[in-house]
Amino acid sequence: MKPKMKLPDYYRTQLTPKAEIYRRISAFQAALAKDHLEAALIHQDVDLFYLSGTMQQAFLFVPVQGEPLLLVKKDIARALAESPLGQIKSLPTIGQLGETILHYGHQIPPRLGLEMDSLPISTYNFLKEKLRWREDHDISVRLRKIRAIKSDFELTQMRKSGDIGRRLYQTLPKILKPGLTEMEVAGRLIQKAVSWEDMNLLRSRSFNSAAFSWHVISGESGSFQSRNDAPFAGLGQSPAFPMGASQKPIRTNEPILVDFGTCFNGYQTDQTRMFSLGKPNKAYLKAYQALQEIEAHLLDHLHPGTSAESLYRLAMKDAQKLGYQDSFLGPKGQKVKYVAHGLGLEIDEFPFLALGHDYPLQEGMTLALELKIVLEKAAIGFENTVVIRKEGVEKLTTVDETFMII
Amino acid sequence: MKPKMKLPDYYRTQLTPKAEIYRRISAFQAALAKDHLEAALIHQDVDLFYLSGTMQQAFLFVPVQGEPLLLVKKDIARALAESPLGQIKSLPTIGQLGETILHYGHQIPPRLGLEMDSLPISTYNFLKEKLRWREDHDISVRLRKIRAIKSDFELTQMRKSGDIGRRLYQTLPKILKPGLTEMEVAGRLIQKAVSWEDMNLLRSRSFNSAAFSWHVISGESGSFQSRNDAPFAGLGQSPAFPMGASQKPIRTNEPILVDFGTCFNGYQTDQTRMFSLGKPNKAYLKAYQALQEIEAHLLDHLHPGTSAESLYRLAMKDAQKLGYQDSFLGPKGQKVKYVAHGLGLEIDEFPFLALGHDYPLQEGMTLALELKIVLEKAAIGFENTVVIRKEGVEKLTTVDETFMII
Repeated sequence: MKPKMKLPDYYRTQLTPKAEIYRRISAFQAALAKDHLEAALIHQDVDLFYLSGTMQQAFLFVPVQGEPLLLVKKDIARALAESPLGQIKSLPTIGQLGETILHYGHQIPPRLGLEMDSLPISTYNFLKEKLRWREDHDISVRLRKIRAIKSDFELTQMRKSGDIGRRLYQTLPKILKPGLTEMEVAGRLIQKAVSWEDMNLLRSRSFNSAAFSWHVISGESGSFQSRNDAPFAGLGQSPAFPMGASQKPIRTNEPILVDFGTCFNGYQTDQTRMFSLGKPNKAYLKAYQALQEIEAHLLDHLHPGTSAESLYRLAMKDAQKLGYQDSFLGPKGQKVKYVAHGLGLEIDEFPFLALGHDYPLQEGMTLALELKIVLEKAAIGFENTVVIRKEGVEKLTTVDETFMII
Repeated sequence: MKPKMKLPDYYRTQLTPKAEIYRRISAFQAALAKDHLEAALIHQDVDLFYLSGTMQQAFLFVPVQGEPLLLVKKDIARALAESPLGQIKSLPTIGQLGETILHYGHQIPPRLGLEMDSLPISTYNFLKEKLRWREDHDISVRLRKIRAIKSDFELTQMRKSGDIGRRLYQTLPKILKPGLTEMEVAGRLIQKAVSWEDMNLLRSRSFNSAAFSWHVISGESGSFQSRNDAPFAGLGQSPAFPMGASQKPIRTNEPILVDFGTCFNGYQTDQTRMFSLGKPNKAYLKAYQALQEIEAHLLDHLHPGTSAESLYRLAMKDAQKLGYQDSFLGPKGQKVKYVAHGLGLEIDEFPFLALGHDYPLQEGMTLALELKIVLEKAAIGFENTVVIRKEGVEKLTTVDETFMII
């Protein structure tokens, strides 16, 4: 075995602590037991990182009891330097996965837990031919529900991400100038963010979905719909990425929505604030105020034990009372069916405050409250990332909350 | 049906022309006929964009003959504005996909072509339950081989992408300063690039792989290996993205490798150049010169009809002659098995100049020649994107090729 790779201090301080990794493994093993599974095989990169602390090309074989086995195709030295797991071994080729698992004393059980929401069919078929399990069982929801509840370590990463956001939004009054395109504003934000350790990367789990930070949406750009499951999309740079910031120049007196997600050490926070160069139409200020009222009401009810779905209904009812039933969460006939999504290592985590999500919220769950109103000629947004705690909700995003008129 | 969405001029000029889309459809239908398939169902977003001109949430049903049917879940107005196809219809829910295909006069054939390399198992299982085909056939390689050969329209997009790169690298002598971190340099490059219509997005097809533009790798950062199938990885910002630019400050007299991929209208070009602040060790200049010689020899042989694999062997032989057998394409025991990869809408397209790729090169194929030497304390790289033409190779990246000592 090679000597461990030497990692610099700033990098090592971001490694997931050993106790944390084993707590996650135990929670996952308890979930396997509930599903009467003897083992699961983890391969999707974010799940693998969550359970092992490293994101190398690897497979993690997790028996329902005892030490998991991390088999690393590339790079073994880096995996050894990053993961606190006790059993980290080299995998010469993926074709040898089955025999390598056997070699280290495990059996392939007849029923195997897999990430059925993520593994491509051809990978699945290849693995099945090699490992010859009889029945597979999707463990992705179980694992995602474990991941939904954040530890203190995770919340620390998210607070740091929120702090990048706070610094970033403070620079916006200096950045925004009439005539700059939305994408030019986005580029300046990215440049600032990465200089403060932002990762310039948001991850989303769903197939065919791309998470990205640069929603700078001004005036009528806010009325464009597109492929994403969002109240509005923006126009985007081209049909090859039809959403987000565009080449439209920003103008005076129009609402400018900035929905810039930040990411520290893999952990994301998401926030939206409104700006304008000169006074905007009062209707936009009023809509923003309505979103702030809806958030305040939601925060009052974000307790452990509350049904996720009930809070979606609460927000919809508030929007109706405030006169925004035709514009809240999208225009009529095109509304999204959620008012908040979980987030952390991915942007589409549990829980969802959404129709069909009738489960109780729990302490440690993190949520982006995606409050958006789509008017005929602009989109108005207000968004914070919060964590549910027994003693009350904590905002992980701490950007000033006024509609900033510059 | 709603009125078409009104798109601004800069966006409309980027739409794929109708004749081009139907030429692609015809080529794909010919491939289906070769595989004795009556139809294929396309869902992966890049394939869908290639064959329809839009990247909305949709399925494209392609019969072996006649007009294909684009069924759009979201957003139908945008799809109508972007795609020149003749049959674009609304899909109320994915569960109704089968009946909607029937409704528009098609049959689900017993053997259906699918993108088996991309579709997640759960999506596949869901579709199979609804569409009830008997046998599936992977059409992804056939389609990727069609996509490997670029049209004039595509080459125009790639030349524009290359031109963003040319402008970008010209700014580097002004950007690079001792003490700036690799990631700070990367951030400034991103900011410049997007202001010139770069999309801040590179796509890769493979599962668990993330393409990104910001390889700014200085000095010993070049010795770090990681998960990616590359001669070196860089350290990265954190274990949650263990590659690319890091928080290491750049120093005088060390080699600085900048491998920044650009993207215009979805089409990527890739290039690598070397810089240093003050004179670097002569060994680095010598290694760079060796890579330039290897490229020159490759360019002489990049003709239609040449075997892809043979050029990998040619480069390996040249590296040996020049004394770099232990460092070319990675350190001993960790070498990658390709010297070039195709690229366009994705960074991992056909062809590959690689072991096991014994097929003839064709006119219109585009390649990134990934020439890298990994020494003990630094990585040296030289890379251009080229297109194979009967009359000779054309470089799509036009950045000055000297090792820039600032």
